[in-house]
Amino acid sequence: MPAKTNDPAKKTWLPVPLHSDFPIQNIPFGVFLTREDVITIGTRIGDHAIDLGALHQLGYFEGIPLTDDIFLQDTLNDFISDGKKTWRLVRNRISEIFDKNNATLQHNEEHKKIVLFTMDEIEMQLPVLIGDYTDFYSSKEHATNVGKMFRDPENALLPNWLHIPVGYHGRSSTIVPSGTPIYRPIGQTFPKGAETPVFGPSKLVDFELEMAFITTDANVLGESIPVDEAEDYIFGMVLFNDWSARDIQKWEYVPLGPFLAKSFASSISPWIVTMDALEPFRVESPKQEPTPMPYLQQNGKKSFDIHLQVDIAPENDEPTTVSKSNFKYMYWTMAQQLAHHTINGCKINSGDMMGSGTISGPTSDSYGSMLELAWQGTKPLTLKNGQTRKFIEDGDTVTIKGHCEKNGIRIGFGEVSSKLLPPFKSKTK
Amino acid sequence: MPAKTNDPAKKTWLPVPLHSDFPIQNIPFGVFLTREDVITIGTRIGDHAIDLGALHQLGYFEGIPLTDDIFLQDTLNDFISDGKKTWRLVRNRISEIFDKNNATLQHNEEHKKIVLFTMDEIEMQLPVLIGDYTDFYSSKEHATNVGKMFRDPENALLPNWLHIPVGYHGRSSTIVPSGTPIYRPIGQTFPKGAETPVFGPSKLVDFELEMAFITTDANVLGESIPVDEAEDYIFGMVLFNDWSARDIQKWEYVPLGPFLAKSFASSISPWIVTMDALEPFRVESPKQEPTPMPYLQQNGKKSFDIHLQVDIAPENDEPTTVSKSNFKYMYWTMAQQLAHHTINGCKINSGDMMGSGTISGPTSDSYGSMLELAWQGTKPLTLKNGQTRKFIEDGDTVTIKGHCEKNGIRIGFGEVSSKLLPPFKSKTK
Repeated sequence: MPAKTNDPAKKTWLPVPLHSDFPIQNIPFGVFLTREDVITIGTRIGDHAIDLGALHQLGYFEGIPLTDDIFLQDTLNDFISDGKKTWRLVRNRISEIFDKNNATLQHNEEHKKIVLFTMDEIEMQLPVLIGDYTDFYSSKEHATNVGKMFRDPENALLPNWLHIPVGYHGRSSTIVPSGTPIYRPIGQTFPKGAETPVFGPSKLVDFELEMAFITTDANVLGESIPVDEAEDYIFGMVLFNDWSARDIQKWEYVPLGPFLAKSFASSISPWIVTMDALEPFRVESPKQEPTPMPYLQQNGKKSFDIHLQVDIAPENDEPTTVSKSNFKYMYWTMAQQLAHHTINGCKINSGDMMGSGTISGPTSDSYGSMLELAWQGTKPLTLKNGQTRKFIEDGDTVTIKGHCEKNGIRIGFGEVSSKLLPPFKSKTK
Repeated sequence: MPAKTNDPAKKTWLPVPLHSDFPIQNIPFGVFLTREDVITIGTRIGDHAIDLGALHQLGYFEGIPLTDDIFLQDTLNDFISDGKKTWRLVRNRISEIFDKNNATLQHNEEHKKIVLFTMDEIEMQLPVLIGDYTDFYSSKEHATNVGKMFRDPENALLPNWLHIPVGYHGRSSTIVPSGTPIYRPIGQTFPKGAETPVFGPSKLVDFELEMAFITTDANVLGESIPVDEAEDYIFGMVLFNDWSARDIQKWEYVPLGPFLAKSFASSISPWIVTMDALEPFRVESPKQEPTPMPYLQQNGKKSFDIHLQVDIAPENDEPTTVSKSNFKYMYWTMAQQLAHHTINGCKINSGDMMGSGTISGPTSDSYGSMLELAWQGTKPLTLKNGQTRKFIEDGDTVTIKGHCEKNGIRIGFGEVSSKLLPPFKSKTK
């Protein structure tokens, strides 16, 4: 079904800049504020945002079972609830409407005025209301690096890691879209050599290079999702920066896990790229040894070849690329994560988000956090402007980009880019 | 302001059974399905549920700034967003309407038919859409008991425990109201003596006696809530059973905390008792030594004297009370928990829920979990029917009750009661 829509030969009548992340083969979904201050659901081709609410009102989705207001909403949750069949029908229809050989909208200037926006006319919003957010810890390289630094270099991986896609519940209320500035968190830490914990701004603010997937309603309370069906419940993926305060984390996280070290903010890219758009970029995931339990076993290409990059730009200065990684390094797949998440009967809703965990590659220039890149501050990175970084400093903008590329087609995620500000002026005494 | 509404001398024209949790001084808020299959927001006096949506339509809340549909909703979130002043105006008005000396509704048979339901005519729902759920770990006795069992009896409390109200993010999607049956979760465990992890139903399903509070919108991203203001953002409290699978927890929880061991289900009592109703039952919380950091310091009576009880009833058999505890044992107060939760700028929304953590008292008959009551299975409890319990068995119903009592007035929470069923018949291979 997605084959035709993914056809590399397909061209659109909209302009698509060279190396754009958003050719007609992508068709991501997002939510934006228009120039008239209206919130709508939309897609993007090249540098044009397309108002799907308006397209639907104009009758372009005729024949597809959609409620009248499905795109006139401030989140994608209801559309995602409609399920995979409907996502695909809509994606295919959008592909037809903007096909170079389709004259209907192409030559209707009145409709085009209503439907099309340039990217600078709109403001991207959070695409979904995230009911529950879970973060996994599924990069073996990352878990190994952290284990080496904080536990035992000889037994870096904990005993459960190769058996379980380890994960934890995160905070939904502070997930913000790209462009939202982040405040340096304050809190308790226990610095080396101190006799009691100290209070103040975190000194070790870090990014985490992650991706995340968005689910649809998948089960009822008590029901598990088989690993072979899990992909059907994944709507799409975004780039994800899981901001972390390493010093707060170190003092608080035993025994119940990271809490305030993470919940001050997490940033996502605003366009959800569908699994159908990513289909041509499937790759095998790393060999799993020992063989996982049956409920986690799967065959075939269950990962995706997604090039990832992290840039740091000091205030008013040019960016330096500090890491190049790839989603394909993930040890546990999304299907395995979802099967594991529901093996206990945990209910999954439309708009739930699940992070991959930090995506570190095998080499030191492919690590997914400053903690690893600068190895606990022992190997500071040098930026283009000559400054060094052990962690993120106030005024720095961290930008994660990601894209797939094959047969001349590039399907990208755009970026998640956020500036770290000094601590919020708090009312706290 | 609440003084008049809390007056012990106040009587209502509705019948209130002896020892009822719901005298006219309580006025809790909940959501229920009526005999006409309509969902509405309501309150309860004695064994009558009162339809606030209907009362509002009939003009009984005239003069209070409320939108027309504020009670015609399937969650309390919007009403809670209206803030403390409005909660209080509504509570006071309800108190007036049902005052023995007020004839208006009392003698309007037509209105009474529309507004009043007996409890057996309605079905209680989840009172709020819980955006984010956080669980704390704030009973010193519980943390000490767990530390003794799983870590070092000599150093049972972890170093951060006396400095931080330790907490973690939980799963919102599986919080269910009293009466919803729970399925025994399946998953991975690593039993003592095994060489590899095993798969199957949890063998150590436990309850956790907790209470939880529900918040209103409190801050913007980045902003902290001062401990002295924190109580203003708490709408009310419920009873909370934080179902736990001890064997799953043991294998999965290092290093990121409890995950599937908790997320299979958590149960709450359906009526939210407001902080105004609890006002007369304030007590001092335990002395905190060492003195907490300034952002956690507070004076006065910041805890509440709430009697708690846990009963276990085997299938078709009478209940046995297995624990009697009290909310006042909590080391960290709700205000401290909320101040800590936001010290990093974490945004708190209307309908967020925060659990106390297991509430264990100082004696072995006041512990808040089977893990502690039967001390890791070494001291099985004997039920009235002669059976013993180390943990919860299929068919058992666990019921938590809670109430305050002073000057002849009893303000109660009703109960959270849930039956444990065998594992869900899963599609998983």
